[in-house]
Amino acid sequence: MTDLRGKTIAGSFFHAPEPDGFQFLEDALVAIDAGGDIAAVMAPSDAGYAAARENARNNGTLVEIPAGCFLLPGFVDLHIHAPQYPQLGKALDVPLEDWLHRHTFPLEARYADAAFARRNYEALVGDLLAGGTTTALYFATLHTEATRILVDICVEHGQRALVGKVAMDSEADCPPYYRDASTEAGLAGTRALIDYVAGHAANHGLVHAVVTPRFIPSCTDAMLEGLGAIAGECGCHVQTHCSESDWAHGYGLARYGVTDTEALDRFGLLTRRTVLAHSNFITNDDMDRIAARGAAVAHCPLSNAYFANSIFPLRAALQKGVRVGLGTDISGGPSASMIEAQRMAIAASRMLETGVDPALPAASRGRPGSRIDFALAFHLATAGGGAALDLPVGSFRPGFHFDAILINPNVAGSTLRIDEHTDTSADMLEKTIYTASKSNISSVWVGGRPVTGRSSA
Amino acid sequence: MTDLRGKTIAGSFFHAPEPDGFQFLEDALVAIDAGGDIAAVMAPSDAGYAAARENARNNGTLVEIPAGCFLLPGFVDLHIHAPQYPQLGKALDVPLEDWLHRHTFPLEARYADAAFARRNYEALVGDLLAGGTTTALYFATLHTEATRILVDICVEHGQRALVGKVAMDSEADCPPYYRDASTEAGLAGTRALIDYVAGHAANHGLVHAVVTPRFIPSCTDAMLEGLGAIAGECGCHVQTHCSESDWAHGYGLARYGVTDTEALDRFGLLTRRTVLAHSNFITNDDMDRIAARGAAVAHCPLSNAYFANSIFPLRAALQKGVRVGLGTDISGGPSASMIEAQRMAIAASRMLETGVDPALPAASRGRPGSRIDFALAFHLATAGGGAALDLPVGSFRPGFHFDAILINPNVAGSTLRIDEHTDTSADMLEKTIYTASKSNISSVWVGGRPVTGRSSA
Ligand SMILES: [Zn+2]
Ligand SMILES: [Zn+2]
Repeated sequence: MTDLRGKTIAGSFFHAPEPDGFQFLEDALVAIDAGGDIAAVMAPSDAGYAAARENARNNGTLVEIPAGCFLLPGFVDLHIHAPQYPQLGKALDVPLEDWLHRHTFPLEARYADAAFARRNYEALVGDLLAGGTTTALYFATLHTEATRILVDICVEHGQRALVGKVAMDSEADCPPYYRDASTEAGLAGTRALIDYVAGHAANHGLVHAVVTPRFIPSCTDAMLEGLGAIAGECGCHVQTHCSESDWAHGYGLARYGVTDTEALDRFGLLTRRTVLAHSNFITNDDMDRIAARGAAVAHCPLSNAYFANSIFPLRAALQKGVRVGLGTDISGGPSASMIEAQRMAIAASRMLETGVDPALPAASRGRPGSRIDFALAFHLATAGGGAALDLPVGSFRPGFHFDAILINPNVAGSTLRIDEHTDTSADMLEKTIYTASKSNISSVWVGGRPVTGRSSA
Repeated sequence: MTDLRGKTIAGSFFHAPEPDGFQFLEDALVAIDAGGDIAAVMAPSDAGYAAARENARNNGTLVEIPAGCFLLPGFVDLHIHAPQYPQLGKALDVPLEDWLHRHTFPLEARYADAAFARRNYEALVGDLLAGGTTTALYFATLHTEATRILVDICVEHGQRALVGKVAMDSEADCPPYYRDASTEAGLAGTRALIDYVAGHAANHGLVHAVVTPRFIPSCTDAMLEGLGAIAGECGCHVQTHCSESDWAHGYGLARYGVTDTEALDRFGLLTRRTVLAHSNFITNDDMDRIAARGAAVAHCPLSNAYFANSIFPLRAALQKGVRVGLGTDISGGPSASMIEAQRMAIAASRMLETGVDPALPAASRGRPGSRIDFALAFHLATAGGGAALDLPVGSFRPGFHFDAILINPNVAGSTLRIDEHTDTSADMLEKTIYTASKSNISSVWVGGRPVTGRSSA
């Protein structure tokens, strides 16, 4: 694992800058500047390629990817609850009410203990980086200290991260042991986090603070208003849950007489920098509104199977111009793997397209035109997530941060078999998305900096 | 990796002999006889436990599982197309017609080349064993030589396997380059495989021959009649595809005026030893018929998302008394992992329960009561598959073969994190099913014999 800042890397790369297909950069050169950004991308057919390669070799700055390996952009996890990692894969059979009040809130409340927070956040960030998640949009907990610790750990590990102190002050919907002490305390905690991140000496733009109302039911109007004002002042990112399930969608309608999307907009929380998790039940008008504001949706297919009563109508949203990325939604989603999130995004889109109940006639069973393919799933997990955050990540393009993972099909425990004689580049990428696992990710870089302890390249 | 024949293994075990929950055998002793079968299972509270443990220690036959590790029964893959492994994770976006005629049939036809067959079957069987699949019910190809090679490789690697030479003689539905030369040739090939397996000097009951009409559309009535007669004579297992998709279900109805299930029954192909792949569109009457004959269904949730236009109504089938196991359906299913098959079985059951289209009212969106939990998925992947085959595998019970995998959460590349202080035994198993990956399977045994090259225990 080599530090690639100031180096030129020679090898083959896949990326998907746009939703309509992937690109294969075979035997390309990617020059990385001293700050970890991509300075140039050259194909063998480009005029200066041979000279640039020769030059890098002579300078000792050429790094050649081993034969059979290739690079992908690092993954952008657009929705993840950092404190829920210890219960990943647990309690998925209980009703939402139990899941929140018997499992999730008690777990999150334990992050009042800084040592507990540090131990679990260390494990999470290390595991996510090893799994190829180079950027994460995190819900933390309501605790300011633990949330600062998550910021520190992301900085220490070199993970690009957007971190929100969760705001939740509703006495009706939040338990007494896990609720902001007051609306003002919650708002002050949000402001304090923004200041902490802005003043963090070692940060250098890697980590960002995020305005994070948990979801409408957990917040008072005063909290939503206050957070909207903060978002307007600071220009920060905003994240929340939106119209996730029948219950959540109905709650917003009952409280405001309008959808979550419209309510959030009224509070100033639907901005160009907003990411709405789930949004399964958004209406056509909501989609138009989200597109008009330039907000984005974090599609979380792994968790939707358990908590959303439906599949997000992804194709419809894309056709409306909504920007979409993928999230794992740990631990509502039972996997930390953005590769598994891609797989489930594809499978779920097929199930929405055909429908699921064989007792219904085919013509009325599903929603035709809903399917996505592996290339679009790959786009969502990389460039789509980057675009949703307005961050220059997810593609191998000049000016973008060099956030990347090295896929090695030939390691112990590999689940990926490439046949160099018969597999096309499309096959290589499709096989990777369907069958690669953590073992196949042998190096990970964020801004050209190696971020896992494991060896390779 | 130790040969456990004649040994007593001490450690913790999970199994799920019945559909209604799992059992945790903590600090148990499992004595394995010289033939690789389980001679005794003892809990610490059992009268002779201490003496048996002491005795095994003194004899040098005690094998202690490392702390933090535990054992599961090996997985039973109840539906898998061995020759399709090279295209795992490929061509999942094309229509079924293209998938068959441009990808699958041309690939299967290449198994006329024995060297090609050996190379690919070696890779498959080794990878499946490393992934914990200790028993597989295989569709091979129509070639007798290549199918014998698959038998040989299973015997050599020590995988428990049921192998079928695929019968497909319909001029209307099979391409000229990949079709039994004649009905009689196809039947003769089936008989020859049965004889080959019966006379295999090294087999010792590990591998079985299976009567395997590909599916109704690919077979003439004469072929189905002939295969039914062979099944009746030999008492072999039978496998075929049944009512998989709208198209396939409709095809059978159009040809016979009855469902696939009833047609197969008329041909003598629905027996106590029959496994029907998919069966998504079987009727209530079909379920009764399948249950009455004692036949079984191989539920393949990973592939159903791509090719079945629906989700198999698993709960309904179980309530009707149909025996069910899980299959990967490589390469219609894009994963070789029976752990991923369990995950998708659970997620798919939730999607069937709630429905998928948020535009529909909740009350008419799904099919209530369809969900399964991790314990039932685990049962299907182990004891359920064993029961479907009438083989004594899938549980840690006296008289059963010791087919098992060792789960180690503490390996490089682990995706499984167990907290010994807070995770219950249910949590350990649920986390394993949702988050473990191939890296966490550090040893695999079939009949007490170690079957992978990797080290542990
Ligand atoms: Zn969430
Ligand atoms: Zn099949």
